[in-house]
Amino acid sequence: MFDFRRTHHLGEIRKENIGDKATLSGWVHRRRDHGGLIFIDLRDRFGLTQLVFDPKLCPEAHQKAEQIRSEWVLSVKGKVRSRGEGMTNPNLATGEVELEVEELEILSKAKTPPFSLSDENLEVSEEVRLKFRHLDLRRKELQEKLIKRHEAQLIARNFLHKQGFVEVTTPILGKSTPEGSRDYLVPSRIHPGEFYALPQSPQVFKQLLMVAGLDRYFQICSCFRDEDLRADRQPEFTQIDIEMSFGTPEEIYALLEGLLSEMFDKLTGKRPLTPFKRMTHEEVMSKYGSDKPDLRYGMQMSKINDIAEQSDFSVFKEALKNGALIKGFKVDGGAKFSRKGIDTYTAFVGNLGIKGLAWLKFTAEGLQGSIAKFFNEALQKELMARFEMKEGDLIFMIADDPDRCNLALDHLRRKIAKDEGLVDPNRFEFLWVTDFPLFHWNEEENRLDSLHHPFTAPHPEDIHLMDSDPLKVRSLGYDIVLNGYEIGGGSQRIHDSEFQENIFKALNLTPEAIKKKFGFFVEALKYGTPPHLGLALGLDRIMMIATKTDNIRDVIAFPKTQKASDLMMDCPSEVDPEQLKELKLKLN
Amino acid sequence: MFDFRRTHHLGEIRKENIGDKATLSGWVHRRRDHGGLIFIDLRDRFGLTQLVFDPKLCPEAHQKAEQIRSEWVLSVKGKVRSRGEGMTNPNLATGEVELEVEELEILSKAKTPPFSLSDENLEVSEEVRLKFRHLDLRRKELQEKLIKRHEAQLIARNFLHKQGFVEVTTPILGKSTPEGSRDYLVPSRIHPGEFYALPQSPQVFKQLLMVAGLDRYFQICSCFRDEDLRADRQPEFTQIDIEMSFGTPEEIYALLEGLLSEMFDKLTGKRPLTPFKRMTHEEVMSKYGSDKPDLRYGMQMSKINDIAEQSDFSVFKEALKNGALIKGFKVDGGAKFSRKGIDTYTAFVGNLGIKGLAWLKFTAEGLQGSIAKFFNEALQKELMARFEMKEGDLIFMIADDPDRCNLALDHLRRKIAKDEGLVDPNRFEFLWVTDFPLFHWNEEENRLDSLHHPFTAPHPEDIHLMDSDPLKVRSLGYDIVLNGYEIGGGSQRIHDSEFQENIFKALNLTPEAIKKKFGFFVEALKYGTPPHLGLALGLDRIMMIATKTDNIRDVIAFPKTQKASDLMMDCPSEVDPEQLKELKLKLN
Repeated sequence: MFDFRRTHHLGEIRKENIGDKATLSGWVHRRRDHGGLIFIDLRDRFGLTQLVFDPKLCPEAHQKAEQIRSEWVLSVKGKVRSRGEGMTNPNLATGEVELEVEELEILSKAKTPPFSLSDENLEVSEEVRLKFRHLDLRRKELQEKLIKRHEAQLIARNFLHKQGFVEVTTPILGKSTPEGSRDYLVPSRIHPGEFYALPQSPQVFKQLLMVAGLDRYFQICSCFRDEDLRADRQPEFTQIDIEMSFGTPEEIYALLEGLLSEMFDKLTGKRPLTPFKRMTHEEVMSKYGSDKPDLRYGMQMSKINDIAEQSDFSVFKEALKNGALIKGFKVDGGAKFSRKGIDTYTAFVGNLGIKGLAWLKFTAEGLQGSIAKFFNEALQKELMARFEMKEGDLIFMIADDPDRCNLALDHLRRKIAKDEGLVDPNRFEFLWVTDFPLFHWNEEENRLDSLHHPFTAPHPEDIHLMDSDPLKVRSLGYDIVLNGYEIGGGSQRIHDSEFQENIFKALNLTPEAIKKKFGFFVEALKYGTPPHLGLALGLDRIMMIATKTDNIRDVIAFPKTQKASDLMMDCPSEVDPEQLKELKLKLN
Repeated sequence: MFDFRRTHHLGEIRKENIGDKATLSGWVHRRRDHGGLIFIDLRDRFGLTQLVFDPKLCPEAHQKAEQIRSEWVLSVKGKVRSRGEGMTNPNLATGEVELEVEELEILSKAKTPPFSLSDENLEVSEEVRLKFRHLDLRRKELQEKLIKRHEAQLIARNFLHKQGFVEVTTPILGKSTPEGSRDYLVPSRIHPGEFYALPQSPQVFKQLLMVAGLDRYFQICSCFRDEDLRADRQPEFTQIDIEMSFGTPEEIYALLEGLLSEMFDKLTGKRPLTPFKRMTHEEVMSKYGSDKPDLRYGMQMSKINDIAEQSDFSVFKEALKNGALIKGFKVDGGAKFSRKGIDTYTAFVGNLGIKGLAWLKFTAEGLQGSIAKFFNEALQKELMARFEMKEGDLIFMIADDPDRCNLALDHLRRKIAKDEGLVDPNRFEFLWVTDFPLFHWNEEENRLDSLHHPFTAPHPEDIHLMDSDPLKVRSLGYDIVLNGYEIGGGSQRIHDSEFQENIFKALNLTPEAIKKKFGFFVEALKYGTPPHLGLALGLDRIMMIATKTDNIRDVIAFPKTQKASDLMMDCPSEVDPEQLKELKLKLN
């Protein structure tokens, strides 16, 4: 039998190895027939090594090599030699050497792949790539992302271990407590008519581990949400889940800053500055119209209700009567925007339900634009001062219902940043957002809803407002934002059973519903619960940003489509009627 | 607000800290009122520290301390002092010091727990313990097991990383391919009538990662089987799953020996000897009647069909006519067994379907026992020689159908070892079992079945028997056995698509079934598949053995009962009819 145990990987051989014997194995990346000599670039995940088949040296191997095609798997034995003057490839780590093949074993033939695996500019639909994921994963770009993901997880685990955190695996077969999102259900065969649910997060378990006195817990775990998927969502996703007892938010901030700066340093070569910036929810909403602003570029927003009030611009004045927020931001050098360019942005916010996009340019002649005339000189000066305009700048302004106004300005700001090339993929701007409201108003169900989740503690300064003005109560929740993505969030938890029960009541849960869904948890809190707090990081999003892709499927080995299908395995799929019978289930 | 940030854990303070100020937090383990002075042992996962409340020093704290009960959560500030002559506790790391409390904050009160958490001899049903798992987990014994499990996982990850393995997360929402065990199904809402299945193992995914050229993969992952549970099984369990390309079983053996010896060294302080012992399947079955023998004790078995044939013992001779296996083992010093003791063992094998347990004692008068007379002197000598008997020993013998005979002897051997105290929990005897049969005969379905799984490669020396005598074909599968448990198994895989398809055919799968269940996999193998092999370790069992418990629930944070229920969360449970409606499912 041919002994195919490798002496080297394919990215390893250097000049120093010239004259050595080697056994190499891998995939045929490219094959070139040069009048007599056959050259093959053999590939594995570590690199490429050039093989030479010389009919004079080894006619047998050369003859076999003639039939070889792309993606066949070979094992070869031979001698390392120099490529010779003018034949070296400086772009390849192994570019100065090649292997003179003396023995060749074809380990596996290959059909022609449905798309080229050696071409850098891949022109093929994502659907085909997902169907042949096992081949797409041969591409260096995707392999590197998987390897970085592995490294990120290991860095996190070792970091948290050194800080005294214990990784505990919590169940995948859990209890359905549909609060926020829809659960994936798993029918029980042993208990017909009953179901498990896949966890949306290990929230309850990790809090129970604090009740149990584990002190510091973490877990890198799969979580599940049966939602209609957006582009950057997957039905199963990975969290780095953290919880600690007797701590304070300051300790969480310091811990996460240490963890993320180490992770990004090792993954990207850039160590983020610590401590990270912090803003309250009120501040980010005011400055960026968003609770997850991208801080890699400027365009901070300013409210101009007071200036609009004094103007003669009837659109603004009318809007103010309806309680509008009038707000805008400055684009440095935006005076260069053409009328057509501005129209595009008007249409862009139009799609978000905004009726008009007001703008003013600061040119050599002062403020220009069709609405300039509605602002007297003093107001124009105030506008320019508020936005710190200089010649060549432009401001965009929107007057609308506050939520819609902020949303549109946020989208517009992100779009202009992209269009103007202000988004630097090599910068990592972290931000803590704190002091979120504890509740928001659920219009559909006409009741209070938790902004984070019902286990979040209220801000101690606002507890007196719990009954009188609950929407004013701030929470001890915090989010961590990176480059415009929310990459994690957490909070100080409620550790008082009675208070927890009151929160459930405030959310309009009936005593029966509380008992059924959270009864055991409320009860568990009664046996001596330490103050505790935690956070969950979205690993998939972090890996997207760290590996500079905007496709979440690039950082998941076997992702699902937006229809939650695995195209490679063809799943979900029909099952044997016998299986449903055993579960005492019927399709409707 | 009281600042409860700790200066020390509760296992940390020593003589050197005397005079220091400290802030401590934790649970009330025990409280003693000593005429004026109140002593509290405060507990966290790191240890216990004694608090003293002196009414003269701090009447306020002393007064508050009077109401304190077990399991309340406290935070205290005070000064470390010596316990004084004769008051030290040498059994406690912190036993020379105590904290003189100056300030006390009661962080959380506690109801009386349903069972004592400070009592070492816990007399409470497992059901109650599982219902209050969050309290049971406060016990040091269970916390230590969870922490060791965490350490084991981290050791494995760092070890495998150093060996070039990449951890890749494979999907939990997979495809149902019910081969061996029953799948847990997850109905799809987006694709009504279709289902995902929870993975029984990531087998197909890890092989596809080899097809993708990832070279070396591992994963510590949850797997699921919807089976009627045995005592040491859980519906979800954890595997350390490993796969590599271009390797040989020898490399797997060396890798795993390195991993397991490091793991056991760090977890138990005992470094297992490497290389581990190896036996073929034929050899273990012959010597131990089991493919997972416990090698911590002797009692190797011997076949005595030839001796029985020559004897006058009609029971043996009759059995031989029916194709029986006659086999036994020696118990060193077993001649001391009373008639009653032997009767117990006879009843024990009787419960396994064995009609009689033959025995002979070697006493000062030679071989003794009711059947001794059926063996002439020469045969007696042969028997004594075969079992290497010396005076004081006993042999047990069984004549029955070979499978039943082996099974009963294996059970009997284990029982005697337990009864005689031969089972040393501090010894770790690893064993590789190789050369398993590729197939076994599935009586129920009247067809061949894979002994490991259908991806296992046959032994190259036996391929010629594939058609003519498939039950004689050995596989390239291997198991790893520790102290009588199979803790892992794996194999060289089939990497040839056509051969893989032939195996599916040999298992009586129709071409349609192959296509539907494994079509994409058989197809995937056609695009250039490297030779590859791997193994999966059962982490739960390994942790049971390493932490010396025989209850698998002790090494799982939130385990399920044998009825697959979580008693703490009360799950599985009924769900909202609305949830089923969305899934287009009906209960039958």
